[in-house]
Amino acid sequence: MNLAAVRAELPVLARYAYLNAGTFGPLPRRAVEAMESQHRRDLEEGRSSREFFQGALELRERVRNELTRLIGAPEGSVALTSSTSEGCAIAVAGLGLGPEDEIVTTDIEHPGLEGPLRVSGARIRVASIRTRPAAEALDALEAEITPRTRLIALSHVAWTTGALLPIRQLADRGVPLLVDGAQAAGSIPVDVEALGCDFYTVSGQKWLLGPDATGGLYVRPGREEELRILVPSYFSWERGTFDPRAGALRFDSGWIPTASLQGLASSLAFAQEVGNARFARAGEMAEMCRELVGERVRVITEPGQSTLIVFEPAGDPAELVLALHGSGVVVRDLPGLGWVRASVGFWTSEEDLERLASHL
Amino acid sequence: MNLAAVRAELPVLARYAYLNAGTFGPLPRRAVEAMESQHRRDLEEGRSSREFFQGALELRERVRNELTRLIGAPEGSVALTSSTSEGCAIAVAGLGLGPEDEIVTTDIEHPGLEGPLRVSGARIRVASIRTRPAAEALDALEAEITPRTRLIALSHVAWTTGALLPIRQLADRGVPLLVDGAQAAGSIPVDVEALGCDFYTVSGQKWLLGPDATGGLYVRPGREEELRILVPSYFSWERGTFDPRAGALRFDSGWIPTASLQGLASSLAFAQEVGNARFARAGEMAEMCRELVGERVRVITEPGQSTLIVFEPAGDPAELVLALHGSGVVVRDLPGLGWVRASVGFWTSEEDLERLASHL
Repeated sequence: MNLAAVRAELPVLARYAYLNAGTFGPLPRRAVEAMESQHRRDLEEGRSSREFFQGALELRERVRNELTRLIGAPEGSVALTSSTSEGCAIAVAGLGLGPEDEIVTTDIEHPGLEGPLRVSGARIRVASIRTRPAAEALDALEAEITPRTRLIALSHVAWTTGALLPIRQLADRGVPLLVDGAQAAGSIPVDVEALGCDFYTVSGQKWLLGPDATGGLYVRPGREEELRILVPSYFSWERGTFDPRAGALRFDSGWIPTASLQGLASSLAFAQEVGNARFARAGEMAEMCRELVGERVRVITEPGQSTLIVFEPAGDPAELVLALHGSGVVVRDLPGLGWVRASVGFWTSEEDLERLASHL
Repeated sequence: MNLAAVRAELPVLARYAYLNAGTFGPLPRRAVEAMESQHRRDLEEGRSSREFFQGALELRERVRNELTRLIGAPEGSVALTSSTSEGCAIAVAGLGLGPEDEIVTTDIEHPGLEGPLRVSGARIRVASIRTRPAAEALDALEAEITPRTRLIALSHVAWTTGALLPIRQLADRGVPLLVDGAQAAGSIPVDVEALGCDFYTVSGQKWLLGPDATGGLYVRPGREEELRILVPSYFSWERGTFDPRAGALRFDSGWIPTASLQGLASSLAFAQEVGNARFARAGEMAEMCRELVGERVRVITEPGQSTLIVFEPAGDPAELVLALHGSGVVVRDLPGLGWVRASVGFWTSEEDLERLASHL
């Protein structure tokens, strides 16, 4: 991997030690150029020709295919969505759970997953894993599974601790398994078939370096028939009918801005060009981050987890984040927890990490 | 209204007699410039500073306030959505209807409304109005209302005929009234309080000249308590809780691309500058379109309806639309009906209409 070439494509890195892909990834130059080209065409040519619509539809399929390949999903099993939150809600609401049903989840989930669970009508059983060693997460989760469990819903990588959760070990229990992949897809290798999950969400704007409000939802082939379509879009139906499209396509959540699709396609192509070596490099840099930060403050994230490194600073986390931003280091705090999170990517340099550590 | 200045701001008009705002409006130059500025900032500054998030949240409120004012809604009664289809689905699914319930609708609805009705679980009673005079629509609709009616759902302006539907006369019957405003908001004056409806959807990308995947949903104050939140977003909750935000804000459907919000804000400001005279002018030009087209072919749209003029060409509609595009005239056909639709705006010139008529 040619680090200098990678970094030259991500202009924000020239200005900051940008360590917040867990919120929004650094945008590649080509993604913004692709969006600008689309806007200029829309401005001058209008948004109405046969080419415009055919192009937009083809672009949707191109992006769908790239996302599908990225997470090892079979063809036709990924819906295009605007976010992980939306993907979670489509799956949870579609199951049509009631007060007799139970959902098993954890105490480290993002509101994007917890919100849909809260409004589902089902009883929620929460496994407490935040303060336990990662190796104990499976036992804690299993202790909450009962004959009434109708859904197991949890993150692949915890946004608050960086822990890698035991997805594979929770699969194939006769209970649908929904995985919030927001912090995993693009940061670590993902293979939804090997994981054995039923639903898996992807965020475009984080580790995939895409525009905001892009994403995907994997639905295991066959499971689509068990999900009600509650918020249909133009793309839910076979053209000219109200027959649901095959597979996950019926859950396409609506028109995604054409420029955003262009941008995401460019971001995905960029990562593809960097190649699979990017995952190993991101892991190495995350480990280096853990070590450097760990020399100054207590690190929450255990070794060998993900590309999120969470730590407990000496002072107020929000003030530290602001001060770091002023010093050219971009991280985020985790409100309510007293922690700060650094997101490390294949684009991260040793110098980025040293800049972070030097200010702790 | 200074037509030359208006047209100079809409570059597509220099190239085409662009008559398809009913699908996608012509984009103002300033909207694209605002989107490009946002993309450049995101590229170079990243998407993570306090200013970035505060700016995005303030921009949401600014756009919300403009949409609220545009449709005469009270403060806090408009949710930001990605489309009219989504707005319809939020309202219909949120009512939680079952097989004992009935919905009254018409045979001229867009799939964006019909789709949510179809998956609602309720019985649908369809008033046949497509081939009747507009003055008979109310009787046809009233004939379908029964004691089991739990929702009346219809367009303000019919996308297929351009007819203006009798919304006011269907209000205040003790039955929720959902209005698909996709072809009305921005093309004719809209006052949701005077109309007396309970839910009203707005499309940003059509008559508001905004970017794709933008829109709004009006929820009459008080009605929000009767709607389940099925697809919650980050914006559904009071910060740091899972308590629904007040009024319609709980139905905000998710993050809208910041650039799209910038673009929509610019488009709305442009229309605001043109002023309320734009509605009268659009109406006059639509009437002129009706007359010019009517000299050549049969016009479906009755006089004094909306800014959509639908007509029945002599030959194949799809082929005509393609041929017209080649001649610099942009309209659309309506598959299955044998009709072609011209969308006339305040920006339309007499010459645009003459170009259309001359090719019929």
